[in-house]
Amino acid sequence: MSEAIFDVQAVVGDLAAARQDWRNAQQRYSETGGRELPAREAMADIMQGLRGVLFPMRLGPSNLRQENEDFYVGHTLGAVLQALHAQVRLELRYNARHNDAASSSALDASAVHIVRDFAEALPGIRRLLDSDVVAAYEGDPAARSVDEVLLCYPGILAMVYHRVAHAFYQTGVPLLARIVAELAHAQTGIDIHPGARIGAGFFIDHGTGVVIGETAHIGRRVRIYQAVTLGAKNFPLDAEGKPVKGAPRHPTLEDEVVIYAGATVLGRITIGRGASIGGNVWLTHDVAPGSHITQATARQDLTTH
Amino acid sequence: MSEAIFDVQAVVGDLAAARQDWRNAQQRYSETGGRELPAREAMADIMQGLRGVLFPMRLGPSNLRQENEDFYVGHTLGAVLQALHAQVRLELRYNARHNDAASSSALDASAVHIVRDFAEALPGIRRLLDSDVVAAYEGDPAARSVDEVLLCYPGILAMVYHRVAHAFYQTGVPLLARIVAELAHAQTGIDIHPGARIGAGFFIDHGTGVVIGETAHIGRRVRIYQAVTLGAKNFPLDAEGKPVKGAPRHPTLEDEVVIYAGATVLGRITIGRGASIGGNVWLTHDVAPGSHITQATARQDLTTH
Amino acid sequence: MSEAIFDVQAVVGDLAAARQDWRNAQQRYSETGGRELPAREAMADIMQGLRGVLFPMRLGPSNLRQENEDFYVGHTLGAVLQALHAQVRLELRYNARHNDAASSSALDASAVHIVRDFAEALPGIRRLLDSDVVAAYEGDPAARSVDEVLLCYPGILAMVYHRVAHAFYQTGVPLLARIVAELAHAQTGIDIHPGARIGAGFFIDHGTGVVIGETAHIGRRVRIYQAVTLGAKNFPLDAEGKPVKGAPRHPTLEDEVVIYAGATVLGRITIGRGASIGGNVWLTHDVAPGSHITQATARQDLTTH
Amino acid sequence: MSEAIFDVQAVVGDLAAARQDWRNAQQRYSETGGRELPAREAMADIMQGLRGVLFPMRLGPSNLRQENEDFYVGHTLGAVLQALHAQVRLELRYNARHNDAASSSALDASAVHIVRDFAEALPGIRRLLDSDVVAAYEGDPAARSVDEVLLCYPGILAMVYHRVAHAFYQTGVPLLARIVAELAHAQTGIDIHPGARIGAGFFIDHGTGVVIGETAHIGRRVRIYQAVTLGAKNFPLDAEGKPVKGAPRHPTLEDEVVIYAGATVLGRITIGRGASIGGNVWLTHDVAPGSHITQATARQDLTTH
Amino acid sequence: MSEAIFDVQAVVGDLAAARQDWRNAQQRYSETGGRELPAREAMADIMQGLRGVLFPMRLGPSNLRQENEDFYVGHTLGAVLQALHAQVRLELRYNARHNDAASSSALDASAVHIVRDFAEALPGIRRLLDSDVVAAYEGDPAARSVDEVLLCYPGILAMVYHRVAHAFYQTGVPLLARIVAELAHAQTGIDIHPGARIGAGFFIDHGTGVVIGETAHIGRRVRIYQAVTLGAKNFPLDAEGKPVKGAPRHPTLEDEVVIYAGATVLGRITIGRGASIGGNVWLTHDVAPGSHITQATARQDLTTH
Amino acid sequence: MSEAIFDVQAVVGDLAAARQDWRNAQQRYSETGGRELPAREAMADIMQGLRGVLFPMRLGPSNLRQENEDFYVGHTLGAVLQALHAQVRLELRYNARHNDAASSSALDASAVHIVRDFAEALPGIRRLLDSDVVAAYEGDPAARSVDEVLLCYPGILAMVYHRVAHAFYQTGVPLLARIVAELAHAQTGIDIHPGARIGAGFFIDHGTGVVIGETAHIGRRVRIYQAVTLGAKNFPLDAEGKPVKGAPRHPTLEDEVVIYAGATVLGRITIGRGASIGGNVWLTHDVAPGSHITQATARQDLTTH
Repeated sequence: MSEAIFDVQAVVGDLAAARQDWRNAQQRYSETGGRELPAREAMADIMQGLRGVLFPMRLGPSNLRQENEDFYVGHTLGAVLQALHAQVRLELRYNARHNDAASSSALDASAVHIVRDFAEALPGIRRLLDSDVVAAYEGDPAARSVDEVLLCYPGILAMVYHRVAHAFYQTGVPLLARIVAELAHAQTGIDIHPGARIGAGFFIDHGTGVVIGETAHIGRRVRIYQAVTLGAKNFPLDAEGKPVKGAPRHPTLEDEVVIYAGATVLGRITIGRGASIGGNVWLTHDVAPGSHITQATARQDLTTH
Repeated sequence: MSEAIFDVQAVVGDLAAARQDWRNAQQRYSETGGRELPAREAMADIMQGLRGVLFPMRLGPSNLRQENEDFYVGHTLGAVLQALHAQVRLELRYNARHNDAASSSALDASAVHIVRDFAEALPGIRRLLDSDVVAAYEGDPAARSVDEVLLCYPGILAMVYHRVAHAFYQTGVPLLARIVAELAHAQTGIDIHPGARIGAGFFIDHGTGVVIGETAHIGRRVRIYQAVTLGAKNFPLDAEGKPVKGAPRHPTLEDEVVIYAGATVLGRITIGRGASIGGNVWLTHDVAPGSHITQATARQDLTTH
Repeated sequence: MSEAIFDVQAVVGDLAAARQDWRNAQQRYSETGGRELPAREAMADIMQGLRGVLFPMRLGPSNLRQENEDFYVGHTLGAVLQALHAQVRLELRYNARHNDAASSSALDASAVHIVRDFAEALPGIRRLLDSDVVAAYEGDPAARSVDEVLLCYPGILAMVYHRVAHAFYQTGVPLLARIVAELAHAQTGIDIHPGARIGAGFFIDHGTGVVIGETAHIGRRVRIYQAVTLGAKNFPLDAEGKPVKGAPRHPTLEDEVVIYAGATVLGRITIGRGASIGGNVWLTHDVAPGSHITQATARQDLTTH
Repeated sequence: MSEAIFDVQAVVGDLAAARQDWRNAQQRYSETGGRELPAREAMADIMQGLRGVLFPMRLGPSNLRQENEDFYVGHTLGAVLQALHAQVRLELRYNARHNDAASSSALDASAVHIVRDFAEALPGIRRLLDSDVVAAYEGDPAARSVDEVLLCYPGILAMVYHRVAHAFYQTGVPLLARIVAELAHAQTGIDIHPGARIGAGFFIDHGTGVVIGETAHIGRRVRIYQAVTLGAKNFPLDAEGKPVKGAPRHPTLEDEVVIYAGATVLGRITIGRGASIGGNVWLTHDVAPGSHITQATARQDLTTH
Repeated sequence: MSEAIFDVQAVVGDLAAARQDWRNAQQRYSETGGRELPAREAMADIMQGLRGVLFPMRLGPSNLRQENEDFYVGHTLGAVLQALHAQVRLELRYNARHNDAASSSALDASAVHIVRDFAEALPGIRRLLDSDVVAAYEGDPAARSVDEVLLCYPGILAMVYHRVAHAFYQTGVPLLARIVAELAHAQTGIDIHPGARIGAGFFIDHGTGVVIGETAHIGRRVRIYQAVTLGAKNFPLDAEGKPVKGAPRHPTLEDEVVIYAGATVLGRITIGRGASIGGNVWLTHDVAPGSHITQATARQDLTTH
Repeated sequence: MSEAIFDVQAVVGDLAAARQDWRNAQQRYSETGGRELPAREAMADIMQGLRGVLFPMRLGPSNLRQENEDFYVGHTLGAVLQALHAQVRLELRYNARHNDAASSSALDASAVHIVRDFAEALPGIRRLLDSDVVAAYEGDPAARSVDEVLLCYPGILAMVYHRVAHAFYQTGVPLLARIVAELAHAQTGIDIHPGARIGAGFFIDHGTGVVIGETAHIGRRVRIYQAVTLGAKNFPLDAEGKPVKGAPRHPTLEDEVVIYAGATVLGRITIGRGASIGGNVWLTHDVAPGSHITQATARQDLTTH
């Protein structure tokens, strides 16, 4: 027999040792021996199906005819809910892995309830997304039609994913929610935490670099541009100096606020109804309703040489 | 029969009601019952083919030999043009949907003309892209060869898509143009409106977060870095207070301008030949040829504590 | 015979002429007539395999069981190393194309050595990535588990690709390294040059718009946020005015430095151990260990109207 | 440039000359320049869809649930009928290619009618196939369940395809019918001409080598085994010595006939109700109802040496 | 809205009625609402994996190297056994569907045992297949190497599938066994019932049309040619006139028997060791060891005219 | 860690032992450690390409237009010849594996010559196939057009593969030839040895079960039906009792012979020009030109009871 070119066996052994060290360090011992976590690919397929369920004639199969919409929606929804059920079970079991009292059948029943609630939320999600599409069409002079908006705008795609992710977040499967959020982030460069609460008619133009934090609260008909951050200024710490989980730490934007590109809005502050924040502004305090904030003078301080 | 786990039927009904409300609100009634819009997936395939047509030995199939280049180019081009023709017809028909006078055969003839004009533009596009590759190679000290540039640089990929999208924009299929632009945006984080006019030898380094507006006009041998915005300061409004479509509102960059990372250039201003704009500069007025603009003092105003 | 709708033949001819002009201008003549460059698609497949090799139970196939991990790792590694060997040979031959003395068998032997060295580096890469996962888990209050971090965080994905790309960069296949880096850039918006040296426990939060230059040197337990640039201020030029290749021109970050979103750090400066740099800061000089730099006053200089 | 290894150009030219000679000899000139014939691959996809439409819980997708059957059936049927419509148009246009009077719109209307008629025939086809499944289950002592029969038996698969092909044959698209028949032939080795009329409860066991001719007429509850031929003895010729098309020339099998493996039954003869024909029998004359035909003596005429 | 071209809704309703009639007639009511039967596609994938497990360097992936065989075999086997386990469970549950006493956990435990037994049988199957390959190589003067035999001969492919199917048949999953047998039948035209017991060194040349019945018993080093039938003459009936299941009704072939093309051997007869049966012979009685049976005279009874 | 369900490790070990025993018994030691044999899948892809090269508008891609035929043919042929070259090299090296004198470069040069010769033979193959199509169209009263014949008839598909396989057989790659023959056998049930010499205008109707041996010689305009065997009566043996390789042992059919279904023609006999052989006839002696042979009396010897 010919000699091996690469010593695969040795590398396999060293990699196994590295994994073992990690498992020892993390005290991670699989209880089933099999896959224990939801899968990004599965969630990507589920989202692909949901896009068609929500907008069958625009994001569904190209050969669909309107008279057959409901067949397509029903068939796809049936398959999607089953696939989702499997992923929800994986997350629930994973969450309960240190909890001996959690019976398998109770977890399974929870999974069914979560998927049912999600299914019932879908028509409301569609209506919210319709309001987002109208907002984009009305907010961008370059938009020629609502169809173009739905087909092309990354901000709309990000909201399709976010409104689904937020529904997951609310019903107790935050890991699935996070996976969905990152699927949108990878495609659009828009990073919205699934916990963020966002009202109807939200429009993100261009979008690359937008970051919206977990406890942000956004009213109706708000518009933001690329590279806007709605972040935390700092984290409340507990007695041990560790961040307090879930503490409100991101801004509240009231209805009809506009924030231009590159602005950074930090902390649990409130931007009042109808206020606008200029490009590149760095903001850490409340803004009264109807105000217009710009970084006027500093921006003129340029040197020509 | 076993009971249904999820009440798919009910959700299907509610989703149908939501769609009906939308159609009523938007007065959208399909005339054909079938798909009326171009498809993102179809345009993605067309672009994949065009990349090979433009650079057969670099972006075509890995087993291609140089002596057979023309066979590959001709075969692929024939298939691409047919597929493009179908998408062009969809857009033309969609655009004419409120225009009873538009005959089907006239639209079809227009579609043929558009595709023919596009096909004839391809060799010129290739030559422009060659100039972009050279510009990247000469503009980046890290670039080892023109081949590395073509293979790796997201700025080059963005320009391949933009130069094609701009050709679509000019010949009357702006929705196809926009789809192509967004395909590049999703891959590179570079958002160039298809309407932007860009001269030979254009180089975008790194690129994430770049936004270039519809009426921007960029000369030859210009270089920009990541997160540069060439945007509108505000929109001219008409008597009803609505934005005037297509009004020139983005900057003009003359030949050999350089704009460093994070700079924001807004409004119908002109940056003169050979000028350079420093990183993070916020600029809303003309700049004379040969000037070097930096935000010198403000940047030193740091607090150490 | 029916007439041709599109004059494919003519366009093929014009495209061939454009290619010929390019080849003449670049003095590029293929010596083999076949593909001479590594392929992005091949490297994407290789990276997909390596992700599974490094984290079999998390990023490997969903039906893998723990008792069979080593079979999967060994089988996948064997296939990956062979595929990598082919790409390494392509790069070595391409690099040697102007060097008549480079014998084919010597290049092939070099390719084997490079792949062997890379294989041996994999267990170490895994251990470094484990430290990155822990850093993300500990650095982000929103992170619920190390598994969520590995599954969802774009900053981790970027580091998986970077640590592999850096190994390629160090062993003499910089083009493969660059392709790998751009694969991560396209997915995450994080642009790390393969040359950058990065210590254990590195965490990038959100990540979109991050740029890290070739000669950057990052210590242990460093944390950065979205849109941070670690760039060059200017390039040392040689006697002919051309940039000197590989000259150290990017910052050094000592252990436990934190840099907040949007900060720009330029030039061969050193940020001392434990220092923190505030959001949007523009920094071009050294910072002492333990300092906290913020852009305090300028940020308050806002105009309300 | 390197020399070409294979002279592709020369072979391309010689192949083009061969095609031109064929087109001249056959006087075949394409009128449209495009594909003029139905596609085997398209019909294979259509049949795959129809199998699911007819037996959703057995031959449809594995994740289908019974409560969602109709959604699946409706969605798939809608897509199948559209795809079929395209193929029917191709055949009708091809058939009319020498008929200048055939208007395009008339052909399109015919295509719609054909597809409508076919769709209406589907429930009846399903009922006939149910009778075939029962016949197989009752006729084969090895069959454990009707489900096994539907899932495994090549004779059933052949009948699914034949009953569809026969419907095509009857409605004026014999080429589509033939393509469907050959798809089954390739999978099962059972060659049934789409013209054959076959009653309910037909069972073919094993099946390889079965041939059933165009004008065969088979009653109810008939059973045949592998390698049975129901063929023509000879063809009636017209005045010019050419075969008369469509003349009845294959056998009639009345209800409940059984024909054992390898028997050859030729010509326009009638096998009476309930008769059985033994293995390898060669039969060219009528058989009375209830008879049992075997090739008794000849079969014993063996030589041992 | 445009009118529907095809009345899909009506056909869906009629098909549902047909299904309902069938379910009523067959008293088939799904207990779970989901798929209850093993899937042909799943078994095809399993067989594809097993072919590689059994002959890794010949039927495994083309880039496999010998030093990594065991990794490939182990990884593939692990995945195959899991997939098989799922199919075995489906069959066991299906078989127990009328048996209320069958607990789910008992069925699952049975499934594990069946798969374990099958896994342990694999090395023995490989050794038997090796003997078949040698027999083919030695039995066919046209065979150039054992590799050619393994790669090309449909008789070998049929035996790979049969020896696996027979193992399934023996361990209590006859439906899986039947599916595997039909997969081979469809590819080769060779129809071997999984129940048939076949000794080492079996060779089928050409193969199309071969049928071997459930209770056939074939010794070692037997050779048969295309279109040979080893069938039942008639079935023993029980008191109700129904066939007795599993009664021995097919021939026994002792070691080193040869049967030439087209011969039909029927009933529970024995062909003695080393006997040969000539082409097209019809045989229903025992044959002594060493005999040579031909259909000498009848075959000369030809008419020339 | 959880316990393994299946003891994969043990089975892997036993399978490795079985492989080792085989390699010892066959004295098979890989010299390269890698794949040494041509691949069936690779040949299937090559044949798929060649079908399009030979009949671009009928078996090529459905969107091909006639004006672009040559581009398609040239591109596909270029790719096919390269892929074929790789397979030819594998066979040549395999054949030379016991021949130390065979230099690698000499084998490579031989491979180029073989592929070149094959490429030059393609136009002639196309012309022969055209004659086969015409023969089928004229020989079958059911054929409606030459296009239907090319699209549907398994006998034509078998000849496309055979004429290619025969070219491989003649130029020294008999294993590739055999693989191609078996690809057709699997699809059609027609088993033609690649060595058989077949004149223009050959037509096989229905085809299942046809077997044509290696040294058969078939003239022009011959027609045969399903289950016809052109076989060897016995093999000439050498002094050691082993079959003499390649000895002429199959029939010669002169021009315009017709052989009806199920006939068996054995040995090195000649069927004279224009003779016809009736169904099921068993023939082992020469037949004079123009004769009509039928098995008249035996076939009437039926028993009715």
